[in-house]
Amino acid sequence: MAHIDLGLDERAHPGIVGPMRYRPETARPLNELAETLLRAPHPTLTPGERELIAAYVSGLNECRFCCASHSATAAAQLPAGMGLVDQVRADPETAAITGKLRALLRIAAAVQRSGRDVTAELVDGARRAGATDLEIHDTVLIAAAFCMFNRYVDGLGTLAPDDPAGYEISARRIVRHGYRPA
Amino acid sequence: MAHIDLGLDERAHPGIVGPMRYRPETARPLNELAETLLRAPHPTLTPGERELIAAYVSGLNECRFCCASHSATAAAQLPAGMGLVDQVRADPETAAITGKLRALLRIAAAVQRSGRDVTAELVDGARRAGATDLEIHDTVLIAAAFCMFNRYVDGLGTLAPDDPAGYEISARRIVRHGYRPA
Repeated sequence: MAHIDLGLDERAHPGIVGPMRYRPETARPLNELAETLLRAPHPTLTPGERELIAAYVSGLNECRFCCASHSATAAAQLPAGMGLVDQVRADPETAAITGKLRALLRIAAAVQRSGRDVTAELVDGARRAGATDLEIHDTVLIAAAFCMFNRYVDGLGTLAPDDPAGYEISARRIVRHGYRPA
Repeated sequence: MAHIDLGLDERAHPGIVGPMRYRPETARPLNELAETLLRAPHPTLTPGERELIAAYVSGLNECRFCCASHSATAAAQLPAGMGLVDQVRADPETAAITGKLRALLRIAAAVQRSGRDVTAELVDGARRAGATDLEIHDTVLIAAAFCMFNRYVDGLGTLAPDDPAGYEISARRIVRHGYRPA
Protein backbone atom coordinates (compact mmCIF):
# COMPACT_ATOMS: atom_id res chain seq x y z
CA MET A 1 0.00 0.00 0.00
CA ALA A 2 1.27 3.46 -0.87
CA HIS A 3 2.67 5.77 1.83
CA ILE A 4 -0.19 8.25 1.27
CA ASP A 5 -3.91 7.82 0.62
CA LEU A 6 -4.22 8.08 -3.15
CA GLY A 7 -7.99 7.76 -2.97
CA LEU A 8 -8.22 4.78 -5.33
CA ASP A 9 -7.81 1.01 -5.62
CA GLU A 10 -4.08 0.54 -6.22
CA ARG A 11 -4.57 -2.89 -7.78
CA ALA A 12 -6.51 -1.16 -10.58
CA HIS A 13 -4.10 1.82 -10.70
CA PRO A 14 -0.60 0.53 -9.82
CA GLY A 15 2.77 2.26 -10.00
CA ILE A 16 2.77 5.84 -11.28
CA VAL A 17 -0.92 5.75 -12.26
CA GLY A 18 -2.16 6.36 -8.70
CA PRO A 19 0.04 9.42 -7.97
CA MET A 20 -0.81 10.84 -11.40
CA ARG A 21 -4.54 10.61 -10.66
CA TYR A 22 -3.96 11.99 -7.16
CA ARG A 23 -2.17 15.10 -8.49
CA PRO A 24 -3.32 15.88 -12.06
CA GLU A 25 -1.57 19.28 -11.97
CA THR A 26 1.85 17.60 -11.93
CA ALA A 27 0.72 14.62 -14.05
CA ARG A 28 0.22 16.91 -17.03
CA PRO A 29 3.85 18.06 -17.48
CA LEU A 30 5.12 14.59 -16.45
CA ASN A 31 3.10 12.95 -19.23
CA GLU A 32 4.10 15.62 -21.73
CA LEU A 33 7.76 15.09 -20.83
CA ALA A 34 7.48 11.31 -21.32
CA GLU A 35 5.61 11.73 -24.59
CA THR A 36 8.17 14.22 -25.96
CA LEU A 37 11.21 12.24 -24.86
CA LEU A 38 10.05 8.72 -25.69
CA ARG A 39 7.50 8.95 -28.46
CA ALA A 40 7.56 12.26 -30.36
CA PRO A 41 9.08 12.13 -33.87
CA HIS A 42 12.88 11.94 -33.64
CA PRO A 43 15.35 12.19 -36.51
CA THR A 44 17.37 9.12 -35.48
CA LEU A 45 16.29 7.36 -32.25
CA THR A 46 13.25 5.06 -32.56
CA PRO A 47 10.64 4.94 -29.77
CA GLY A 48 11.83 1.37 -29.06
CA GLU A 49 15.43 2.54 -28.56
CA ARG A 50 14.35 5.41 -26.31
CA GLU A 51 12.14 3.08 -24.22
CA LEU A 52 15.14 0.74 -23.97
CA ILE A 53 17.19 3.53 -22.35
CA ALA A 54 14.27 4.19 -19.95
CA ALA A 55 13.97 0.47 -19.07
CA TYR A 56 17.74 0.14 -18.58
CA VAL A 57 17.97 3.13 -16.21
CA SER A 58 14.86 1.97 -14.31
CA GLY A 59 16.57 -1.41 -13.85
CA LEU A 60 19.72 0.28 -12.51
CA ASN A 61 17.50 2.19 -10.05
CA GLU A 62 15.82 -1.13 -9.14
CA CYS A 63 12.39 0.42 -9.71
CA ARG A 64 10.29 -2.69 -10.37
CA PHE A 65 7.21 -0.92 -11.73
CA CYS A 66 9.02 1.41 -14.16
CA CYS A 67 11.43 -1.30 -15.27
CA ALA A 68 8.65 -3.79 -16.06
CA SER A 69 6.52 -1.10 -17.65
CA HIS A 70 9.18 0.38 -19.94
CA SER A 71 10.67 -3.05 -20.72
CA ALA A 72 7.23 -4.07 -22.03
CA THR A 73 6.86 -0.83 -24.01
CA ALA A 74 10.37 -1.22 -25.47
CA ALA A 75 9.74 -4.88 -26.35
CA ALA A 76 6.47 -3.98 -28.07
CA GLN A 77 8.35 -1.59 -30.39
CA LEU A 78 11.67 -3.37 -31.00
CA PRO A 79 11.90 -6.01 -33.76
CA ALA A 80 13.94 -8.29 -31.42
CA GLY A 81 11.35 -7.89 -28.62
CA MET A 82 11.84 -8.78 -24.96
CA GLY A 83 14.85 -11.00 -25.74
CA LEU A 84 16.86 -7.90 -26.62
CA VAL A 85 15.52 -5.94 -23.63
CA ASP A 86 16.65 -8.76 -21.33
CA GLN A 87 20.10 -8.78 -22.96
CA VAL A 88 20.51 -5.02 -22.49
CA ARG A 89 19.30 -5.13 -18.90
CA ALA A 90 21.73 -7.99 -18.14
CA ASP A 91 24.74 -6.36 -19.84
CA PRO A 92 24.69 -3.70 -22.57
CA GLU A 93 28.33 -4.49 -23.38
CA THR A 94 27.44 -7.92 -24.78
CA ALA A 95 23.89 -7.20 -26.04
CA ALA A 96 23.14 -7.39 -29.78
CA ILE A 97 22.85 -3.61 -30.27
CA THR A 98 24.74 -1.07 -32.36
CA GLY A 99 27.96 0.47 -31.08
CA LYS A 100 26.19 3.82 -31.01
CA LEU A 101 23.39 2.61 -28.75
CA ARG A 102 25.93 0.87 -26.51
CA ALA A 103 27.86 4.14 -26.15
CA LEU A 104 24.64 6.02 -25.36
CA LEU A 105 23.75 3.43 -22.70
CA ARG A 106 27.19 3.99 -21.12
CA ILE A 107 26.28 7.68 -20.82
CA ALA A 108 22.86 6.76 -19.38
CA ALA A 109 24.51 4.55 -16.74
CA ALA A 110 26.79 7.44 -15.74
CA VAL A 111 23.82 9.81 -15.44
CA GLN A 112 22.03 7.26 -13.25
CA ARG A 113 24.92 7.42 -10.75
CA SER A 114 25.43 11.20 -10.98
CA GLY A 115 25.36 13.85 -13.67
CA ARG A 116 28.96 14.57 -12.71
CA ASP A 117 29.94 11.05 -13.81
CA VAL A 118 29.39 11.93 -17.49
CA THR A 119 32.93 12.48 -18.75
CA ALA A 120 34.27 14.00 -21.97
CA GLU A 121 35.61 10.51 -22.75
CA LEU A 122 32.11 8.95 -22.60
CA VAL A 123 30.74 11.71 -24.82
CA ASP A 124 33.67 11.42 -27.28
CA GLY A 125 33.12 7.64 -27.38
CA ALA A 126 29.47 8.14 -28.31
CA ARG A 127 30.40 10.68 -30.97
CA ARG A 128 33.02 8.33 -32.45
CA ALA A 129 30.32 5.63 -32.58
CA GLY A 130 28.18 8.00 -34.66
CA ALA A 131 25.98 9.69 -32.04
CA THR A 132 24.73 13.22 -32.72
CA ASP A 133 24.52 16.06 -30.20
CA LEU A 134 20.73 15.61 -30.12
CA GLU A 135 21.08 11.90 -29.32
CA ILE A 136 23.54 12.69 -26.51
CA HIS A 137 21.23 15.42 -25.17
CA ASP A 138 18.17 13.18 -25.26
CA THR A 139 20.01 10.23 -23.69
CA VAL A 140 21.13 12.43 -20.78
CA LEU A 141 17.61 13.79 -20.29
CA ILE A 142 15.87 10.39 -20.62
CA ALA A 143 18.26 8.90 -18.04
CA ALA A 144 17.82 11.93 -15.77
CA ALA A 145 14.03 11.85 -16.15
CA PHE A 146 13.89 8.20 -15.11
CA CYS A 147 15.94 9.03 -12.03
CA MET A 148 12.91 11.22 -11.25
CA PHE A 149 10.11 8.86 -12.31
CA ASN A 150 11.71 5.91 -10.47
CA ARG A 151 12.08 7.94 -7.25
CA TYR A 152 8.52 9.28 -7.58
CA VAL A 153 7.06 5.77 -7.87
CA ASP A 154 9.19 4.12 -5.19
CA GLY A 155 9.34 7.16 -2.90
CA LEU A 156 5.56 6.94 -2.53
CA GLY A 157 5.73 3.17 -2.03
CA THR A 158 3.22 2.39 -4.77
CA LEU A 159 2.22 -1.10 -5.85
CA ALA A 160 4.30 -2.94 -8.50
CA PRO A 161 2.34 -6.00 -9.73
CA ASP A 162 4.28 -9.24 -10.36
CA ASP A 163 2.16 -10.45 -13.30
CA PRO A 164 3.66 -9.28 -16.63
CA ALA A 165 0.21 -9.35 -18.32
CA GLY A 166 -0.84 -5.95 -16.98
CA TYR A 167 2.39 -4.31 -18.18
CA GLU A 168 1.86 -5.78 -21.66
CA ILE A 169 -1.70 -4.40 -21.84
CA SER A 170 -0.44 -0.95 -20.74
CA ALA A 171 2.38 -1.13 -23.29
CA ARG A 172 -0.07 -1.77 -26.13
CA ARG A 173 -2.18 1.21 -24.99
CA ILE A 174 0.89 3.48 -24.81
CA VAL A 175 2.08 2.38 -28.28
CA ARG A 176 -1.37 3.17 -29.65
CA HIS A 177 -2.41 6.26 -27.69
CA GLY A 178 0.79 7.65 -26.15
CA TYR A 179 1.48 8.98 -22.66
CA ARG A 180 -1.46 11.03 -21.57
CA PRO A 181 -3.31 11.84 -18.40
CA ALA A 182 -5.86 9.17 -17.41
CA MET B 1 32.18 24.18 -21.95
CA ALA B 2 29.17 21.91 -22.31
CA HIS B 3 29.59 18.39 -23.71
CA ILE B 4 27.46 19.27 -26.76
CA ASP B 5 27.24 22.37 -28.95
CA LEU B 6 24.30 24.30 -27.51
CA GLY B 7 24.59 26.96 -30.19
CA LEU B 8 24.92 29.89 -27.78
CA ASP B 9 27.29 31.76 -25.47
CA GLU B 10 27.22 29.76 -22.24
CA ARG B 11 28.43 32.72 -20.18
CA ALA B 12 25.18 34.48 -21.10
CA HIS B 13 23.08 31.29 -20.76
CA PRO B 14 24.64 29.16 -17.99
CA GLY B 15 23.36 26.00 -16.31
CA ILE B 16 19.98 24.72 -17.46
CA VAL B 17 19.29 27.78 -19.64
CA GLY B 18 21.44 26.53 -22.54
CA PRO B 19 19.90 23.02 -22.77
CA MET B 20 16.42 24.56 -22.47
CA ARG B 21 17.09 26.86 -25.43
CA TYR B 22 18.70 23.99 -27.35
CA ARG B 23 15.63 21.75 -26.95
CA PRO B 24 12.47 23.88 -26.47
CA GLU B 25 10.23 20.80 -26.91
CA THR B 26 11.47 19.35 -23.61
CA ALA B 27 11.93 22.77 -21.97
CA ARG B 28 8.18 23.34 -22.06
CA PRO B 29 7.11 20.47 -19.74
CA LEU B 30 10.24 20.96 -17.60
CA ASN B 31 9.32 24.60 -16.96
CA GLU B 32 5.67 23.69 -16.36
CA LEU B 33 6.74 21.04 -13.84
CA ALA B 34 8.98 23.51 -11.96
CA GLU B 35 6.27 26.18 -11.98
CA THR B 36 3.60 23.77 -10.69
CA LEU B 37 5.80 22.21 -8.01
CA LEU B 38 7.59 25.30 -6.73
CA ARG B 39 5.38 28.29 -7.39
CA ALA B 40 1.74 27.38 -8.08
CA PRO B 41 -0.72 28.16 -5.25
CA HIS B 42 -0.37 25.55 -2.49
CA PRO B 43 -2.61 25.15 0.55
CA THR B 44 0.27 24.91 3.05
CA LEU B 45 3.81 25.01 1.61
CA THR B 46 5.12 28.46 0.66
CA PRO B 47 7.20 28.95 -2.49
CA GLY B 48 10.18 29.70 -0.22
CA GLU B 49 9.78 26.36 1.60
CA ARG B 50 9.45 24.46 -1.67
CA GLU B 51 12.54 26.19 -3.13
CA LEU B 52 14.37 25.28 0.09
CA ILE B 53 13.65 21.57 -0.55
CA ALA B 54 14.93 22.02 -4.13
CA ALA B 55 18.10 23.80 -2.95
CA TYR B 56 18.74 21.17 -0.26
CA VAL B 57 18.42 18.23 -2.69
CA SER B 58 20.56 20.04 -5.28
CA GLY B 59 23.23 20.46 -2.61
CA LEU B 60 23.10 16.74 -1.77
CA ASN B 61 23.56 16.01 -5.49
CA GLU B 62 26.47 18.49 -5.52
CA CYS B 63 24.95 20.30 -8.50
CA ARG B 64 26.58 23.73 -8.19
CA PHE B 65 24.34 25.55 -10.66
CA CYS B 66 20.99 24.25 -9.34
CA CYS B 67 22.05 24.62 -5.72
CA ALA B 68 23.16 28.24 -6.15
CA SER B 69 20.13 29.04 -8.28
CA HIS B 70 17.47 27.55 -5.99
CA SER B 71 19.27 28.76 -2.84
CA ALA B 72 18.97 32.30 -4.22
CA THR B 73 15.30 31.79 -5.15
CA ALA B 74 14.56 30.32 -1.70
CA ALA B 75 16.41 33.15 0.06
CA ALA B 76 14.49 35.75 -1.97
CA GLN B 77 11.19 34.34 -0.66
CA LEU B 78 12.00 33.34 2.93
CA PRO B 79 11.82 35.96 5.70
CA ALA B 80 15.06 34.62 7.18
CA GLY B 81 16.83 34.79 3.79
CA MET B 82 20.12 33.14 2.84
CA GLY B 83 21.10 32.65 6.48
CA LEU B 84 18.37 30.04 6.85
CA VAL B 85 19.19 28.45 3.49
CA ASP B 86 22.81 28.05 4.61
CA GLN B 87 21.67 26.51 7.92
CA VAL B 88 19.46 23.97 6.14
CA ARG B 89 22.15 23.09 3.61
CA ALA B 90 24.66 22.61 6.43
CA ASP B 91 22.35 20.50 8.64
CA PRO B 92 18.53 20.45 8.60
CA GLU B 93 18.55 18.78 12.03
CA THR B 94 19.86 21.94 13.72
CA ALA B 95 18.40 24.59 11.38
CA ALA B 96 15.78 27.04 12.69
CA ILE B 97 12.85 25.45 10.86
CA THR B 98 9.59 23.83 11.96
CA GLY B 99 9.52 20.17 12.96
CA LYS B 100 7.27 19.53 9.97
CA LEU B 101 9.70 20.99 7.46
CA ARG B 102 12.56 19.08 9.12
CA ALA B 103 10.60 15.82 8.74
CA LEU B 104 9.86 16.63 5.09
CA LEU B 105 13.56 17.31 4.46
CA ARG B 106 14.37 13.88 5.92
CA ILE B 107 12.04 12.36 3.31
CA ALA B 108 13.68 14.49 0.59
CA ALA B 109 17.14 13.25 1.63
CA ALA B 110 15.93 9.64 1.39
CA VAL B 111 14.48 10.26 -2.08
CA GLN B 112 17.81 11.77 -3.17
CA ARG B 113 19.56 8.48 -2.34
CA SER B 114 16.82 6.21 -3.71
CA GLY B 115 13.03 6.15 -3.79
CA ARG B 116 13.29 2.83 -1.98
CA ASP B 117 14.90 4.60 1.00
CA VAL B 118 11.62 6.31 1.91
CA THR B 119 10.35 4.22 4.82
CA ALA B 120 6.99 4.06 6.57
CA GLU B 121 8.84 5.41 9.64
CA LEU B 122 9.96 8.56 7.79
CA VAL B 123 6.42 9.12 6.49
CA ASP B 124 4.88 8.49 9.93
CA GLY B 125 7.39 10.93 11.42
CA ALA B 126 6.32 13.63 8.95
CA ARG B 127 2.65 12.94 9.65
CA ARG B 128 3.23 13.13 13.43
CA ALA B 129 4.93 16.50 12.84
CA GLY B 130 1.77 17.70 11.10
CA ALA B 131 2.50 17.01 7.42
CA THR B 132 -0.43 16.32 5.09
CA ASP B 133 -0.54 13.70 2.34
CA LEU B 134 -0.22 16.48 -0.24
CA GLU B 135 2.89 17.84 1.46
CA ILE B 136 4.44 14.36 1.54
CA HIS B 137 3.52 13.80 -2.12
CA ASP B 138 4.96 17.14 -3.21
CA THR B 139 8.13 16.70 -1.16
CA VAL B 140 8.77 13.31 -2.80
CA LEU B 141 8.14 14.74 -6.27
CA ILE B 142 10.21 17.93 -5.71
CA ALA B 143 13.14 15.82 -4.46
CA ALA B 144 12.73 13.37 -7.35
CA ALA B 145 12.44 16.20 -9.90
CA PHE B 146 15.70 17.74 -8.68
CA CYS B 147 17.41 14.38 -9.04
CA MET B 148 16.44 14.88 -12.72
CA PHE B 149 17.24 18.60 -13.10
CA ASN B 150 20.63 18.17 -11.35
CA ARG B 151 21.59 15.25 -13.61
CA TYR B 152 20.41 17.12 -16.70
CA VAL B 153 22.55 20.17 -15.90
CA ASP B 154 25.68 18.26 -14.80
CA GLY B 155 25.28 15.39 -17.30
CA LEU B 156 25.64 17.91 -20.12
CA GLY B 157 28.59 19.58 -18.36
CA THR B 158 27.10 23.07 -18.51
CA LEU B 159 28.69 26.16 -17.01
CA ALA B 160 28.05 27.03 -13.33
CA PRO B 161 29.21 30.62 -12.67
CA ASP B 162 30.99 31.36 -9.36
CA ASP B 163 29.63 34.90 -8.93
CA PRO B 164 26.42 34.89 -6.82
CA ALA B 165 25.20 38.12 -8.52
CA GLY B 166 23.85 36.32 -11.58
CA TYR B 167 21.88 33.84 -9.47
CA GLU B 168 20.35 36.73 -7.48
CA ILE B 169 19.24 38.48 -10.67
CA SER B 170 17.69 35.23 -11.97
CA ALA B 171 15.98 34.65 -8.61
CA ARG B 172 14.32 38.08 -8.75
CA ARG B 173 13.11 37.34 -12.30
CA ILE B 174 11.70 33.94 -11.24
CA VAL B 175 9.94 35.43 -8.20
CA ARG B 176 8.39 38.05 -10.47
CA HIS B 177 7.66 36.13 -13.67
CA GLY B 178 7.88 32.44 -12.75
CA TYR B 179 9.52 29.51 -14.55
CA ARG B 180 8.86 29.91 -18.21
CA PRO B 181 10.62 29.15 -21.48
CA ALA B 182 13.13 31.84 -22.50
